Amino acid sequence: MWSGVFPAVTTKFTEDDRLDHAEMERCFGLQIDAGCDGIIVAGSLGEGPMLSHDEKIDVLKTAQKVAGKKPVLLTVNEPGTREAAAIAKRAAKEGASGLMVVPSPIYHTNPQETVAALTAVAQAGDLPVMIYSNRLAYRVDVTCDDMEKLAADTRFVAIKESSDDIRRSTEIINRFGDRFDLFTGVDNLAFEALSVGAIGWVAGLVVAFPRETVAIYQLMKQGRREEALAIYRWFRPLLDLDVSTYLVQNIKLAEVHAIGTNDRVRMPRQPLSGERRATVEKIVKDALAVRPTLPSF
Amino acid sequence: MWSGVFPAVTTKFTEDDRLDHAEMERCFGLQIDAGCDGIIVAGSLGEGPMLSHDEKIDVLKTAQKVAGKKPVLLTVNEPGTREAAAIAKRAAKEGASGLMVVPSPIYHTNPQETVAALTAVAQAGDLPVMIYSNRLAYRVDVTCDDMEKLAADTRFVAIKESSDDIRRSTEIINRFGDRFDLFTGVDNLAFEALSVGAIGWVAGLVVAFPRETVAIYQLMKQGRREEALAIYRWFRPLLDLDVSTYLVQNIKLAEVHAIGTNDRVRMPRQPLSGERRATVEKIVKDALAVRPTLPSF
Amino acid sequence: MWSGVFPAVTTKFTEDDRLDHAEMERCFGLQIDAGCDGIIVAGSLGEGPMLSHDEKIDVLKTAQKVAGKKPVLLTVNEPGTREAAAIAKRAAKEGASGLMVVPSPIYHTNPQETVAALTAVAQAGDLPVMIYSNRLAYRVDVTCDDMEKLAADTRFVAIKESSDDIRRSTEIINRFGDRFDLFTGVDNLAFEALSVGAIGWVAGLVVAFPRETVAIYQLMKQGRREEALAIYRWFRPLLDLDVSTYLVQNIKLAEVHAIGTNDRVRMPRQPLSGERRATVEKIVKDALAVRPTLPSF
Amino acid sequence: MWSGVFPAVTTKFTEDDRLDHAEMERCFGLQIDAGCDGIIVAGSLGEGPMLSHDEKIDVLKTAQKVAGKKPVLLTVNEPGTREAAAIAKRAAKEGASGLMVVPSPIYHTNPQETVAALTAVAQAGDLPVMIYSNRLAYRVDVTCDDMEKLAADTRFVAIKESSDDIRRSTEIINRFGDRFDLFTGVDNLAFEALSVGAIGWVAGLVVAFPRETVAIYQLMKQGRREEALAIYRWFRPLLDLDVSTYLVQNIKLAEVHAIGTNDRVRMPRQPLSGERRATVEKIVKDALAVRPTLPSF
Repeated sequence: MWSGVFPAVTTKFTEDDRLDHAEMERCFGLQIDAGCDGIIVAGSLGEGPMLSHDEKIDVLKTAQKVAGKKPVLLTVNEPGTREAAAIAKRAAKEGASGLMVVPSPIYHTNPQETVAALTAVAQAGDLPVMIYSNRLAYRVDVTCDDMEKLAADTRFVAIKESSDDIRRSTEIINRFGDRFDLFTGVDNLAFEALSVGAIGWVAGLVVAFPRETVAIYQLMKQGRREEALAIYRWFRPLLDLDVSTYLVQNIKLAEVHAIGTNDRVRMPRQPLSGERRATVEKIVKDALAVRPTLPSF
Repeated sequence: MWSGVFPAVTTKFTEDDRLDHAEMERCFGLQIDAGCDGIIVAGSLGEGPMLSHDEKIDVLKTAQKVAGKKPVLLTVNEPGTREAAAIAKRAAKEGASGLMVVPSPIYHTNPQETVAALTAVAQAGDLPVMIYSNRLAYRVDVTCDDMEKLAADTRFVAIKESSDDIRRSTEIINRFGDRFDLFTGVDNLAFEALSVGAIGWVAGLVVAFPRETVAIYQLMKQGRREEALAIYRWFRPLLDLDVSTYLVQNIKLAEVHAIGTNDRVRMPRQPLSGERRATVEKIVKDALAVRPTLPSF
Repeated sequence: MWSGVFPAVTTKFTEDDRLDHAEMERCFGLQIDAGCDGIIVAGSLGEGPMLSHDEKIDVLKTAQKVAGKKPVLLTVNEPGTREAAAIAKRAAKEGASGLMVVPSPIYHTNPQETVAALTAVAQAGDLPVMIYSNRLAYRVDVTCDDMEKLAADTRFVAIKESSDDIRRSTEIINRFGDRFDLFTGVDNLAFEALSVGAIGWVAGLVVAFPRETVAIYQLMKQGRREEALAIYRWFRPLLDLDVSTYLVQNIKLAEVHAIGTNDRVRMPRQPLSGERRATVEKIVKDALAVRPTLPSF
Repeated sequence: MWSGVFPAVTTKFTEDDRLDHAEMERCFGLQIDAGCDGIIVAGSLGEGPMLSHDEKIDVLKTAQKVAGKKPVLLTVNEPGTREAAAIAKRAAKEGASGLMVVPSPIYHTNPQETVAALTAVAQAGDLPVMIYSNRLAYRVDVTCDDMEKLAADTRFVAIKESSDDIRRSTEIINRFGDRFDLFTGVDNLAFEALSVGAIGWVAGLVVAFPRETVAIYQLMKQGRREEALAIYRWFRPLLDLDVSTYLVQNIKLAEVHAIGTNDRVRMPRQPLSGERRATVEKIVKDALAVRPTLPSF
């Protein structure tokens, strides 16, 4: 159902901490122009847990305006299943193409609870669902055994594989074939995941470097692996910024230099400062200084 | 300012998942009757992240009705600082005695952000604050260096020490003397914490066993350590239920057998089932079968 | 200097716990016949820490007899650097082609100590060295910064990359180009490592399945990736047996069924028993039942 | 059988890396003079894994000469059970009072293997054994279930409890009463362990501060808890040096300043240098500057 590069876009704020829809329209547009295949709003990178339900819906609408016929997914990331189901319902009503669902971001559900929570949200929204499995960020792992149970419900169409272990991709393919659209959710494991058979990439650094991300994906798809690998090697110090407690601030700072936007975040997050800011800026500038010319594809 | 046993009470739900104020009144009353020194609502054990702001305030009011002149604290446990400040303000308006504040339950703040988030909430509520440091549950550790910075603000009066490392208690005392009221927040480290100088206990199993919890505290205070230790040894298999991903379900199941209530929880949590339920029930029943006669104190 | 498949062979024991040289000759011969490119003795898989120095040298000689002109490396895995240097010297005297060196298997050296220990062993043996970096097994990580320091000594020619994180391979290539021969040391990350540029594989399951292991390597080298991937997917449940506390027992049990040998180990290890033995046997038999026909290469 | 303070003494080396028996005699003598109740040689702190069997026996003899009628234990810490049994036998022949036995310092035994390895060593030595359970250093935990199996063999008389979790002490007492002599093996959990019922302390900083260590123990035994706690609070920054990858170097550096010896270690260890050395020296000097006057006991 889904494949290709899906940016998990950042949310843009005004100086007085309200949503900056004009800037989001511009930034989301860069993604679509570069050839991305869909947009995911209000994820971890989109500071979903710091947005109200009304704000989430507003960001969804802005993305829909930009995306045209490409799918726009809203992330469901609420601590309580009651609230998760409520936002899923609203997203459906607003015409979201699908949902990316975190089972439980504070409490660590056991397998039975994980399956029940995901199912409750899928039923409430009645939309295609991408299962977001990220045991490092949320300490809830949607395992292959859980997927087995979820596979009976056709609403679960895709998996964002963020276990941080590349082995999991082959395990999913060995177990389920193409039952689920397999997306990698970890930027600096993306080349490896595409090598073993993933068909999608929920990407982070793409928001600052959309053309390079799309190039890697498309070149891999065409079997031009060495060209893809060369870009990936250049890209790696940047992609590493996605695997960090500070991924939001890191990536927004990359955006500052790459696409000329701001790096405002919502509290408790604060923009990077001091040594950490300097380190990330150096990584971004060093990469920009030797930015590769992309081949046609 | 504060000392003694402060139960972090469970929230009671009706069969149709609304707040059961009558049952909370009864259960909170057992705590006060047994000699507890305050009540904390909407904490981890109170399923705070699954309650709306309106519900939190309603639980606060019920506790206030029962507690008389004893302090009632509301837990601030919101993912966004904006929402955390908002509920702090409402709690103050409703006459809460203080706040127990988690710095950041989803995002893992760095020290500077931790201090900023706690400070923002304290300023919004302008109430005495118990700092809730629990690096295992929330992966944010309020360290001694952070406390140093917070010490300048007199609103920070107490620490709920839940680092899961008993060494931390002595570190806090060595560094700050009695600047902060030191509460242990880990049931099965409580005797040890009181031995090295903690003056309070934010307790969990107390909701099912209030008299035993108060007895340990009071006997320690009177220097009757061997009597306290004997009760503590009996109590340990029960207290261990507090240190678990399933602490809410564990402790509500203990309540079922000890004080005749129900163990309803909010999704994504589910009541214990199968082997885990049987194991916990055996622990509770085994303890009840040899429940010690408490000395007068 | 080195490339291809290097089995880390198991050590064979008689019923009365002495070295079984006849059986080792037979088993090592299967590796060479299948087209492996070298042999490594007395590694983790070879129960090196349970062999005396005399025994290590005897195993080395047996491997040399079988390997012909292909390189034979001895693993240096002694807790003390004094003993590590001593066995390195003996190996050199016996004509070993090189050493695979663990910095420190009990004490967790800091970077300065890691570099000093590796250097002391390299100087004592004066042989080409493969650096064995395995932070999971030994809790000493030979990082890229450490490699930078070691690169000045031309004796350090290769790296056995066992960090358990596939990202490290690209980091090494990005930093050092082809200064070091990059071997993956983790069976179930091998396809991914070869995909991003590793040129060698220190293999485990190869001892039971030498032809399949060599096939994957050679097909990858010839750019026949899809054929290699198909074998790898079949192989994965077996390769997973290499990443386990019980890798020695797991792999020896695979050898029992695949090449008709025994699974004797030295204490404190014991052969697998009970449920774990049954699980591993099922994995091996299931794989044997659908063993793929290998393409010519 | 055993109780009180048992120093795990450091091993002293000459400038050319041989054993310095004269210096060991002097240093061990300070321990006995201060009132320690036994001596343990060749432990983690004694760099046991860097000593040959002959050297271990020589250190044992030196300790015996100093200890008089007090017990001297030799630590068995060999990677292979065959070698562990061999040194146990030699220790018995030389009149060791007992053995402190690590189940397996490199391979991580499962429970069945743990019990088998400990039993093999106990049978070989036929001496009283202190079980050394240290899951952090060796990743083998001797659990209460394992102790249950070992309890049938009367040679297992004591436990060195180094799980790093103070809860374990109460679990052992709740399960086994006084079947085993319970020693804490973690300096900065010692006061807490004695508070809940441990009767012995395998101590580290004692080698530099024997009188303070003995004072805490004796005061606790006499019920003079507040006096003991005051010394413990002063002692804590020093005791923290025991819980570190660098405990040997830390404690030897404390010895430099407190008892005027050297801090030579065997490779791969190196003496502390740079910032780490400065930090530890500051801790030691700060503590010496406010060294408390000890009460009579």
